[in-house]
Amino acid sequence: MKIKPITDHVLIEPIKGEEKSKLGILLPGTAEKERPEQGRVVAVGSGKNISGTIVPFEVKEGDKVIFTKYGPAEIKIEDKEYLIAKEEDILAIIEE
Amino acid sequence: MKIKPITDHVLIEPIKGEEKSKLGILLPGTAEKERPEQGRVVAVGSGKNISGTIVPFEVKEGDKVIFTKYGPAEIKIEDKEYLIAKEEDILAIIEE
Amino acid sequence: MKIKPITDHVLIEPIKGEEKSKLGILLPGTAEKERPEQGRVVAVGSGKNISGTIVPFEVKEGDKVIFTKYGPAEIKIEDKEYLIAKEEDILAIIEE
Amino acid sequence: MKIKPITDHVLIEPIKGEEKSKLGILLPGTAEKERPEQGRVVAVGSGKNISGTIVPFEVKEGDKVIFTKYGPAEIKIEDKEYLIAKEEDILAIIEE
Amino acid sequence: MKIKPITDHVLIEPIKGEEKSKLGILLPGTAEKERPEQGRVVAVGSGKNISGTIVPFEVKEGDKVIFTKYGPAEIKIEDKEYLIAKEEDILAIIEE
Amino acid sequence: MKIKPITDHVLIEPIKGEEKSKLGILLPGTAEKERPEQGRVVAVGSGKNISGTIVPFEVKEGDKVIFTKYGPAEIKIEDKEYLIAKEEDILAIIEE
Amino acid sequence: MKIKPITDHVLIEPIKGEEKSKLGILLPGTAEKERPEQGRVVAVGSGKNISGTIVPFEVKEGDKVIFTKYGPAEIKIEDKEYLIAKEEDILAIIEE
Repeated sequence: MKIKPITDHVLIEPIKGEEKSKLGILLPGTAEKERPEQGRVVAVGSGKNISGTIVPFEVKEGDKVIFTKYGPAEIKIEDKEYLIAKEEDILAIIEE
Repeated sequence: MKIKPITDHVLIEPIKGEEKSKLGILLPGTAEKERPEQGRVVAVGSGKNISGTIVPFEVKEGDKVIFTKYGPAEIKIEDKEYLIAKEEDILAIIEE
Repeated sequence: MKIKPITDHVLIEPIKGEEKSKLGILLPGTAEKERPEQGRVVAVGSGKNISGTIVPFEVKEGDKVIFTKYGPAEIKIEDKEYLIAKEEDILAIIEE
Repeated sequence: MKIKPITDHVLIEPIKGEEKSKLGILLPGTAEKERPEQGRVVAVGSGKNISGTIVPFEVKEGDKVIFTKYGPAEIKIEDKEYLIAKEEDILAIIEE
Repeated sequence: MKIKPITDHVLIEPIKGEEKSKLGILLPGTAEKERPEQGRVVAVGSGKNISGTIVPFEVKEGDKVIFTKYGPAEIKIEDKEYLIAKEEDILAIIEE
Repeated sequence: MKIKPITDHVLIEPIKGEEKSKLGILLPGTAEKERPEQGRVVAVGSGKNISGTIVPFEVKEGDKVIFTKYGPAEIKIEDKEYLIAKEEDILAIIEE
Repeated sequence: MKIKPITDHVLIEPIKGEEKSKLGILLPGTAEKERPEQGRVVAVGSGKNISGTIVPFEVKEGDKVIFTKYGPAEIKIEDKEYLIAKEEDILAIIEE
């Protein structure tokens, strides 16, 4: 079974535990600033429709990304947690 | 009798009980993230009008979809429950 | 006397009582989802102006429709109740 | 002295008393739906500017119209009450 | 010294006292409707930019106008009170 | 050191004390209307992007301007106070 | 490891301590006005999509900038604090 995001949605697997430590990125957050999260892109939709033109995603399958905490919806597939975000929820790509 | 959604609306039959278990998707939701639902597309409208152009749906009759919990309206036809959503309420297609 | 809706407005006669029962559609609504209503289109306006182009209505006189409960305004003509909705308040057409 | 509405504004004289009764239209309103009002168009502005194009009014001087209660501003000219509405506040024309 | 409004702003001198009485316009206002004010246009800006096109003002220096009470900002020049409004705050021109 | 505003931002030095008195402009403000401020334009950005076109500023370095009180951000450079506003915060130019 | 901002995002390293003092810019802030912050641009995204056109950034790597306090999200990479802002959060460039 596969989850295929549509339009400007993207499926993300959160990065947790050991891999997260290895990346060395901390997302502390304070009362004044939003605390983002990190994850790996599993699948992307077709792109966002801006004034009639489909704008392709800047992220692709496999990218490690930083995204806003509150935008995405949460789902579980066979006991694994995933998030469905919009591309506008993604702030940056983590390159190694 | 048939319900035909117009413009960017789509008619969805919620997936419940045994079929839901078989799909193996759980939509837990937490205080911080929205909890989506799953269903089967029964009919789609003509598409969304973006700046004067009709953009066709990415989902079609029969697709199993994940959609946001709070957007759709609820109706009952001959004792069966359906939802009328907008395409923007649909997050992803479940492929088997 | 006739009520002629303008621009993207549509005049709707609510379906009640026996006819409603015959249609077999129930619009229960829950705390979480909006409860739509059903009615018959009596007259439509000229259409919605999107970026300078008039987009004609997808519904026409005589159509039985499902529409959102809270959008339309309520009027009474010679003791009969009508609603004036916008096309965006209409979710679907009921076909028999 | 004359009041000339500009852009997408329209000057309306409310219909009250006997004439209102004769029209046979009641605008009851409920807790759930907005209660519109009726009046006669006295003058219209030049039209609404949509994406750089002036869209002319669908209503004209003399039309009896139904309009939303809360949009328009209220003025008095030589003891007579008038309302200045936007065209988007007008729902329908009453034709006799 | 001169105040020159820019873009879609307009400088207005409020009409008060005797001249106001002579005009015979009362702007009573009720709990349900906004109460507009009247004034004389002293200067207009260059116009509003709608989708890249400058749309010239419909009002000009010297026009007596009716405008919404809450939009404009208040200034005093050598003890005389003025208001700086946007053109969208102006509802109508008073013609004598 | 120089502060160079970007896009539709403009750097303003507030006018205070003696020069303010000489200008003879008072910005009283009331509970009902916004109270604007006055200052001198020190630098302007490249302009606002409206639908893909850069619209140049109507104000230029050296202009005395009236601007809304609450829009701009406050900075201090070597003990001198400045404000960074958007062009839409500027209401008018003071010409002498 | 590198953080690569996407679309209209920009990665900023806050300027603190000695360098901040040397710049001589104070961002006091009051109850009435927003208090901005200063930092150095580390990386920029591809640009903002306005009506289908990518508008390149006005800031570039190495620029010292003033930006709004509340827009950006906060991250930590190997114990160093960074911010991810949108270009619209950046008010001005500090030139030396």
